[in-house]
Amino acid sequence: MSARIIDGKAEAAKLRARVAEEAAALKRDHGIVPGLAVVLVGDNPASEVYVRNKAAQTREAGMNSFEFRLPAETTEAALLALVADLNARADVHGILVQLPLPAHIAADKVLDAIAPDKDVDGFHPMNAGLLATGRAALAPCTPLGCVILAKTVHERLRGLNVVVVGRSTIVGRPAAQLFLKEDCTVTIAHSATKDLPAVCRSADILVVAVGRPLMVKGDWVKPGATVLDVGINRVEKPEGGTRLVGDVDFESAKSVAGAITPVPGGVGPMTIACLLANTLTCARMASGLAAAA
Amino acid sequence: MSARIIDGKAEAAKLRARVAEEAAALKRDHGIVPGLAVVLVGDNPASEVYVRNKAAQTREAGMNSFEFRLPAETTEAALLALVADLNARADVHGILVQLPLPAHIAADKVLDAIAPDKDVDGFHPMNAGLLATGRAALAPCTPLGCVILAKTVHERLRGLNVVVVGRSTIVGRPAAQLFLKEDCTVTIAHSATKDLPAVCRSADILVVAVGRPLMVKGDWVKPGATVLDVGINRVEKPEGGTRLVGDVDFESAKSVAGAITPVPGGVGPMTIACLLANTLTCARMASGLAAAA
Repeated sequence: MSARIIDGKAEAAKLRARVAEEAAALKRDHGIVPGLAVVLVGDNPASEVYVRNKAAQTREAGMNSFEFRLPAETTEAALLALVADLNARADVHGILVQLPLPAHIAADKVLDAIAPDKDVDGFHPMNAGLLATGRAALAPCTPLGCVILAKTVHERLRGLNVVVVGRSTIVGRPAAQLFLKEDCTVTIAHSATKDLPAVCRSADILVVAVGRPLMVKGDWVKPGATVLDVGINRVEKPEGGTRLVGDVDFESAKSVAGAITPVPGGVGPMTIACLLANTLTCARMASGLAAAA
Repeated sequence: MSARIIDGKAEAAKLRARVAEEAAALKRDHGIVPGLAVVLVGDNPASEVYVRNKAAQTREAGMNSFEFRLPAETTEAALLALVADLNARADVHGILVQLPLPAHIAADKVLDAIAPDKDVDGFHPMNAGLLATGRAALAPCTPLGCVILAKTVHERLRGLNVVVVGRSTIVGRPAAQLFLKEDCTVTIAHSATKDLPAVCRSADILVVAVGRPLMVKGDWVKPGATVLDVGINRVEKPEGGTRLVGDVDFESAKSVAGAITPVPGGVGPMTIACLLANTLTCARMASGLAAAA
């Protein structure tokens, strides 16, 4: 039996369409156009592609996109000054500083300077803390996408065993919090975990976010489990050239799993869609409206 | 074989002695006397006992104790005004508002108003967020005590499987974060968990904080595991009168576990000792010194 392949591109498109509808309603009913500011420092080519995609999808959803491209030698002080400006602007509802930042800039300091209610990436400690205490919070986009994809497979997440492999502040840790919020029993595994394959095999939903190509094999997966692969790794093909692979060995895992995300086209596309959803939420909150459904 | 009984009273006394030494050094070297403000609203008898103990142990450690006893009908605004005063006072390094608060006061609002760098209870979302992202934070006292007790049993926590039963913001959730920081593989279980006994049996260290007397039985414990029982429940004795019991059935668990905390005298005494340690840390940080060792 082969797993159902979770179509992240289709789910992301659905979410973007819903956000676009709600953005249009916000404009019609309240005269508000949600605005997302994206700040890129330096000329990392991958970041450049990502920022361009974010801007394009923001505009497609009927929102304003404000892009700031700063040279690699930008000082921390100048970046902090820009963030302060954006915090103060009424037409900017969400602020995203694209990572990684050049080494001479303390990323924590910059992210901590973003107003928590414009923190569309959900990286501010205040949002991490609200999330960690089960309160309403802006949550990081990639783990939000994981939960949405899990819900396309499972009608109810309550009581399911979720194993999150990887404890980054961007994916693993917030994913654990979000699945806990869904009443899952959540295990966080990582590089110090003993017998990781056995821990993975206890999962009804296995979320892998470690950045190691093809690490999780088919025999690490419980038959019928849902596998969400957050990894995106570029590897060389034997015949020359490169291809993108996840942290999960898709070929062996898909014959065991009940459902699995491909790479690319799985979790990846959800990230920007969730970013747009967070921007909409920020715009609504700024106007004293409830978060979007 | 019977488990080693973890002596929380003795460990707490050791920690208090170390805090007292460091407080004396802070006074001698820097002229600073750490000050802890405790605010009690209403006349809950249990809270009254707890506040009295906190004040006494604070003074015994050579620190200043400032106690504020407010009537049950105190308004939220008045309480917030007091918190603002205490935030501004240079001689107050730590602020603790005793819970529970009367129903007409929004506890979250009051706790959120405490300056994060005076938040000795570690309940402010900012501290929860720093903890949740693996950064330096003031962490809640009871889970801090759990980690210290676990270290009296295990030379290294790295790689051990920790199961935390209960997901309160006061104990379960921060305990999970603190054991993750120690490189444990951490599972958070709760009321929606399926087959809780089996999940508990996967634990090298089992932390139970649910508030249900004697819930965890001996056959829920892996042979040789360390059991940390955070519950303190008053139950009736068959022969009349009452006694304190934990969330763990101590009698059946102690014949299986490798080490176990009794109730009372286990995790309980660590809470105030860790509160004093947090107060010392706040006082040091306020003076630009590193957190105490």
